[in-house]
Amino acid sequence: MRVLILGGDGYLGWPTAMHLSQKGHEVAVVDNYFRRRACVEMNCLPLLPVPDLPQRAELWRALTGYSIRVAVGDVCDYPFLLQIFKDFAPEGVVHYAEQPSAPYSMLNRETAAFTLTNNLLSTLNLIHAVAETDSACHIVKLGTMGVYGTPNIDIEEGYLEVRHKGRKHTFLYPKTPGSLYHLTKSQDGDMLYFYCRMWDIRITDLNQGPVYGLAINGSLPDDRLAPIFNYDDIFGTVLNRFVAQAAAGYPLTIYGRGGQKRGYLNIKDTLACVELALRNPPEPGHYRVFNQFVETFSVRNLAEKVREAGRELGLEVQIKQIPNPRREEEEHYYNPSHSGLLSLGLEPHYLTIGVLLEMISMVQKYRDNLRPAYFLPRVRWQHNNCRAVSLN
Amino acid sequence: MRVLILGGDGYLGWPTAMHLSQKGHEVAVVDNYFRRRACVEMNCLPLLPVPDLPQRAELWRALTGYSIRVAVGDVCDYPFLLQIFKDFAPEGVVHYAEQPSAPYSMLNRETAAFTLTNNLLSTLNLIHAVAETDSACHIVKLGTMGVYGTPNIDIEEGYLEVRHKGRKHTFLYPKTPGSLYHLTKSQDGDMLYFYCRMWDIRITDLNQGPVYGLAINGSLPDDRLAPIFNYDDIFGTVLNRFVAQAAAGYPLTIYGRGGQKRGYLNIKDTLACVELALRNPPEPGHYRVFNQFVETFSVRNLAEKVREAGRELGLEVQIKQIPNPRREEEEHYYNPSHSGLLSLGLEPHYLTIGVLLEMISMVQKYRDNLRPAYFLPRVRWQHNNCRAVSLN
Repeated sequence: MRVLILGGDGYLGWPTAMHLSQKGHEVAVVDNYFRRRACVEMNCLPLLPVPDLPQRAELWRALTGYSIRVAVGDVCDYPFLLQIFKDFAPEGVVHYAEQPSAPYSMLNRETAAFTLTNNLLSTLNLIHAVAETDSACHIVKLGTMGVYGTPNIDIEEGYLEVRHKGRKHTFLYPKTPGSLYHLTKSQDGDMLYFYCRMWDIRITDLNQGPVYGLAINGSLPDDRLAPIFNYDDIFGTVLNRFVAQAAAGYPLTIYGRGGQKRGYLNIKDTLACVELALRNPPEPGHYRVFNQFVETFSVRNLAEKVREAGRELGLEVQIKQIPNPRREEEEHYYNPSHSGLLSLGLEPHYLTIGVLLEMISMVQKYRDNLRPAYFLPRVRWQHNNCRAVSLN
Repeated sequence: MRVLILGGDGYLGWPTAMHLSQKGHEVAVVDNYFRRRACVEMNCLPLLPVPDLPQRAELWRALTGYSIRVAVGDVCDYPFLLQIFKDFAPEGVVHYAEQPSAPYSMLNRETAAFTLTNNLLSTLNLIHAVAETDSACHIVKLGTMGVYGTPNIDIEEGYLEVRHKGRKHTFLYPKTPGSLYHLTKSQDGDMLYFYCRMWDIRITDLNQGPVYGLAINGSLPDDRLAPIFNYDDIFGTVLNRFVAQAAAGYPLTIYGRGGQKRGYLNIKDTLACVELALRNPPEPGHYRVFNQFVETFSVRNLAEKVREAGRELGLEVQIKQIPNPRREEEEHYYNPSHSGLLSLGLEPHYLTIGVLLEMISMVQKYRDNLRPAYFLPRVRWQHNNCRAVSLN
């Protein structure tokens, strides 16, 4: 299958490209290097230096024989995107080309405006490019479980049948996102659902939980092929940050009471889920939603697991509560359904102590690069109430 | 009260400015003249020529003694907007500064991208300007009943309590909009609700039905003060178009079966509702939603009423079904609640034959300006399937 990956330079985009290419798909990646620029501007460099896309694609080809086509440019630039669709004629598109950080979206008006316009215009352009070139092309958009918030009822997979005053109707499951970033992922889903109804395109929306891990299936032939790994307050996901804190001998910092529950998954399962979605496209006119995670944990649970793994490595891991920079429920009901991808054949990787040992060891290998200044939250959810984001 | 009106040049913005100024409020209007440019570009000039904002404000002052401050510029330009907030220090803001046409939003990728970015960025900027200058300032945003679509259950006012598997939760009422324009009005509502929860700002979202009419309360002192009145397929609302068709001796064109039901209101009631909302702001942190309409009609009902009124004026009014350019239900359940504004004291104007006679007569006065070429739909909801929008 010809698969186009938008945002192919990112934490998930590049591993997806390698994974699909070694599974025999014809792969092209597009990226505007936003994340690289933002990591410099926000002072939160990734753990390992990452060669640029042409370099990584060349290294991948030299080591494995699989080729990945590369185009550097902006999905918000419609003529650029349209030309790629005309040249490559993808049968499936994986859309990662959105600004993915909640704190970044809450920093100030400029980062909010960028998040809003980038995430929605990239999605609009993608929809129009598909409709203009081949409306059978399947769009797989990476969403987030964070769009649902923490409602007091079960979170269903995409849709909710409501009975009201003796009648019933099935709605898209209502969203209550907790950051502007998460809001844009609800808004882009609403937009995909809308055009699906109007133009009979085919969409899969993968509402993914926080991802952890560094490896792809099989061992990486070269660490220069590892994904961009952030462990900071802006672009790092919580478990990756905890692992880095443990490796650095720094306390694991829990926001508030730590009862925040979320559904987590290993990056290996992200790759498997995306491939399962691509191999099993929905019918035209169907907006299909999967809740993409494997296990739910509270933040406190996660910290305790990392402490346990650290102990096996002889690390004294402390856990420290700090004031919550976000505005969110810290203890809440959480019971999201996630049967769709399992029924397509997903074989989950669970968060064992072994997995954590492997992660901590990989990070320890690069511990000289770890900068503890990156660990603490700089952005608060209140208006204009963030700590200065230093350039040094 | 100091009231800032964003989009103060439009069909509703300018009458709102006159209405509030004669009720003793201190009024400033902002507009970027988008509608004027679009009417030229899309070949759909309004019925009456409309003097520009400084001219209308000067005429209004000369004839009534009430003053309206004017700033021409773009709400999407944040420094411009922020300066106005600093200079004028509004206590309430009425947000009309969005691209308001469903067909315009469905014309092509460029008009879709403009609608999306303009409508969301203007709202984001407004939120940030309020938070940055005075978070007690009350935002009254004009929404649309069209965000709800036509669900098979009653449409409640803003929120819906859902019982599910033995538990319950109150959600923002789920939206199923029928055009990209309507989608953006759902997305901006979600954004206002989000920042309300995060920053404790105060919002009223007025989900308004299609508006009809030309006059403001009392008679207009000069027709040059009348609102921009569109009767075309792009910017004209359906009843205004029917009235123009009747006045021109042209058949009333119904899209499809004509069973589409909506909630309608007289422009006089729009003005009253906006003022009621301003005079009764919600508490900080509250996102209040009113469904703003007076009566529901099917399109067929409306056409029959116009035919009946035409008969009284000796006009032979025909009704003609044409293929529906939109993708929508043509017969459906529709029972939206709308008690909030009535409980604040709204005294509705109903759509009587007398009201229609007055409207038809006013349009007949300018019948030499009527261009029947404007009546027929040029934009279809399918991708790239619109008739050419001629410049001549």
